[in-house]
Amino acid sequence: MDFNFSSWSRRRFVQLGAASALTKSFASASALQKAAAPVGHATMIGVPFAKRNPRIALVGVGVRGTGHLKMLIALDAQIVAICDVVKEKAENGAALVEKSGKKRPDLYTAGPHDFENMLKRNDIDLVLTATPWSWHAPVALFAMNHGKDVGIEVPGVVTLEECWDIVNTSERTRKHCFIMENCCYGYNETLVLRMTNEGRFGELIYGEGAYIHDIREELFQNKANGLWRRAEHTKRNGNLYPTHGLGPVANYMNINRGDRFGYLVSMSSIERGLDIYRKEHLQPGDPRWSEKYICGDMNTSLIKTSKGLTITVKHAVSLPNPYSRINMIAGTKGIFEDYPPRIYLEGDKEEVFGSLDKYKSYTHPLWAKEGDFAAKTGGHGGMDMIMHYRMLQCLREGLPPDIDVYDTAAWSSVGPLSVTSVAKGSTPIEFPDFTRGAWKIRSASAIATMS
Amino acid sequence: MDFNFSSWSRRRFVQLGAASALTKSFASASALQKAAAPVGHATMIGVPFAKRNPRIALVGVGVRGTGHLKMLIALDAQIVAICDVVKEKAENGAALVEKSGKKRPDLYTAGPHDFENMLKRNDIDLVLTATPWSWHAPVALFAMNHGKDVGIEVPGVVTLEECWDIVNTSERTRKHCFIMENCCYGYNETLVLRMTNEGRFGELIYGEGAYIHDIREELFQNKANGLWRRAEHTKRNGNLYPTHGLGPVANYMNINRGDRFGYLVSMSSIERGLDIYRKEHLQPGDPRWSEKYICGDMNTSLIKTSKGLTITVKHAVSLPNPYSRINMIAGTKGIFEDYPPRIYLEGDKEEVFGSLDKYKSYTHPLWAKEGDFAAKTGGHGGMDMIMHYRMLQCLREGLPPDIDVYDTAAWSSVGPLSVTSVAKGSTPIEFPDFTRGAWKIRSASAIATMS
Repeated sequence: MDFNFSSWSRRRFVQLGAASALTKSFASASALQKAAAPVGHATMIGVPFAKRNPRIALVGVGVRGTGHLKMLIALDAQIVAICDVVKEKAENGAALVEKSGKKRPDLYTAGPHDFENMLKRNDIDLVLTATPWSWHAPVALFAMNHGKDVGIEVPGVVTLEECWDIVNTSERTRKHCFIMENCCYGYNETLVLRMTNEGRFGELIYGEGAYIHDIREELFQNKANGLWRRAEHTKRNGNLYPTHGLGPVANYMNINRGDRFGYLVSMSSIERGLDIYRKEHLQPGDPRWSEKYICGDMNTSLIKTSKGLTITVKHAVSLPNPYSRINMIAGTKGIFEDYPPRIYLEGDKEEVFGSLDKYKSYTHPLWAKEGDFAAKTGGHGGMDMIMHYRMLQCLREGLPPDIDVYDTAAWSSVGPLSVTSVAKGSTPIEFPDFTRGAWKIRSASAIATMS
Repeated sequence: MDFNFSSWSRRRFVQLGAASALTKSFASASALQKAAAPVGHATMIGVPFAKRNPRIALVGVGVRGTGHLKMLIALDAQIVAICDVVKEKAENGAALVEKSGKKRPDLYTAGPHDFENMLKRNDIDLVLTATPWSWHAPVALFAMNHGKDVGIEVPGVVTLEECWDIVNTSERTRKHCFIMENCCYGYNETLVLRMTNEGRFGELIYGEGAYIHDIREELFQNKANGLWRRAEHTKRNGNLYPTHGLGPVANYMNINRGDRFGYLVSMSSIERGLDIYRKEHLQPGDPRWSEKYICGDMNTSLIKTSKGLTITVKHAVSLPNPYSRINMIAGTKGIFEDYPPRIYLEGDKEEVFGSLDKYKSYTHPLWAKEGDFAAKTGGHGGMDMIMHYRMLQCLREGLPPDIDVYDTAAWSSVGPLSVTSVAKGSTPIEFPDFTRGAWKIRSASAIATMS
């Protein structure tokens, strides 16, 4: 990554008259794109992080945020402040830092807007937020507006306006906003990404990703996710959580790096799962009986890219299904599919899938070097730790983020676009081009090409 | 199946004033439905075959038709006539019959319309046709118009007009037209159908079927399918072959038996597979260089049923993919998925898929009784033989066909409707109701309930 894409792409924009072309294209674009940037915003593609060992603040240290904290501690990161609306959670986080021998972080626990007081400080470089989804954008925007880079938990931001807000704010403030999409750092995902990048599957044709996870018990607990996430099922009918399945497939396909999402159609089934769970587990009189769940048990979206590739994205969290992200990619020379991982390349004997073991030589350097450490210390089999290791590497070495604000916006946008399509009877809905045309002049994810 | 659904449903129609209601609903229906029947056509739902050991004629005895013939011979069926445009193929068929000790059938080999001369005979009860797809409807219509029941090969008929033509002609002539969808008789499919019918998966929510089969070599051979099937890829972009994956899922979901296909959206990827294959295998100057393949390598369609269930249907025959029909069904209590077959029911330990072996008690009676014989004598692991065994059983015992003209039309219609949706940028397209409302008053496939 020593190639300075940023200055190159800005030069190219001028050479090609791209800035004005893009402005024109924006002027005639659909209402979906009305939140686009003022003329003159320069792209954040390829812009490196300021090189430093970042001083980190956390917003939200529930189950997930505490997981982040533990990994950051294991990576010898500097935690300067923690915010949570629940004082005990912040205290618990502070204790973990102190226990590691580091200075106790300052705590912000005075209500839902106290993160603003924390983020006004000028001794913070990076903010990581793991709150209920509706707070992701407000925290991210406030962070960038106050000079901080920000990492947000999946599924990114919730509305299409928020997608544009993070893009515009990032471009204006020159601060990064990136989704912490841990699945993009999974062992299989990074291995397969190296294979797609080398063309082992030929020209790519289609892929599929999913979040199929029975979280009904979690949704009905009187703690953690149960306090807010079930409510999302009363508000929107579509894919509430697209990025775990989609992010890796977007990387395989070089989305925002030579291709982009073109349009989608989305279809939801009826909803039964949460209603049945409630009937089987709640007492009469429980206030949750008044809730009306509108999110279909299975949402399926089809995305067509500008180059004509297709992606299927599924979301099912309210049915008794074994866990799967599907994680499939297929091209003119072969196919990979996960759960269980299996691979077939043209010419393999018997035309059946074989084990991934045969392709161990494609193990990603992050896993080759840090896999044992990650598996021991990090969540979800190690992928979370690999993600944080790499995030800190990018910051400490002054590299651009692997997954940038355009990826964050594009992947997040599948949520609101799927909701719109479902509401309109599966009508096709166009994706905004958050990169404003720059997707054409960048190639291959840094995760694919790093050595 | 001793319940006489036919006379019951006709009575119900009169009681409910359904005939006029349906006529009215037709009058206001979309252009898609313009080919609907004249007033007064009675439904063919539940109408039994005339009880007899049928005298059978075959149209088309290529690879597939000869397969049918061998199984019919093994089932001691009467083959009275055979038609094929290639004389040697018809002769070969006749020799097979003679070799079995039966009377030599009469042959019709005088060009593509000689089947008409054969079907004008009055000593034929049943016609089975296995020709290029575009001949399925002409043969079926001629057969019914000349007093014969007719079974047509997959993928059924090709255009939406043909879908209506077979329905209208069947209703007018009181002859059956059924698709020989062998996959509906597979071991796994019939076992799972008995489980769905018993509610083991709870209320059904979603399913998926596919025809993922690398047939590039076959498509480019200078014989059999290669002579005509490749041409289909130059004419239409959509799902050319939907029924192998869709038929079993439609049975699980009781489509046309309490539910029906409501609308679909369809998306095709770019086409690369046949072009690459041609480049790698054809000599310069080969006439096939002038062909232009327009059918995307992967077509994905989403169907929403009237009750709100969703079905994903895939078609990919031009890429190096291992074979799969996916064959998935999921409900509020569990999920089955094929390739490899695996099952999870709520309460199973560890929330992972287990083997189908645990559910052997659901083995379909056709397989329990005839499975060994079928596996020894029939194609595709025995399912073809089970299908023919059952077809002859229905005719010999005077039962209604398991899969009727409405199923044949509905399953076939996914072909042309997917083409229309793809051409319109994945716009949602409504299914006609080929049953004219009768889907509401019939329940469960006979395959599911037979003992």
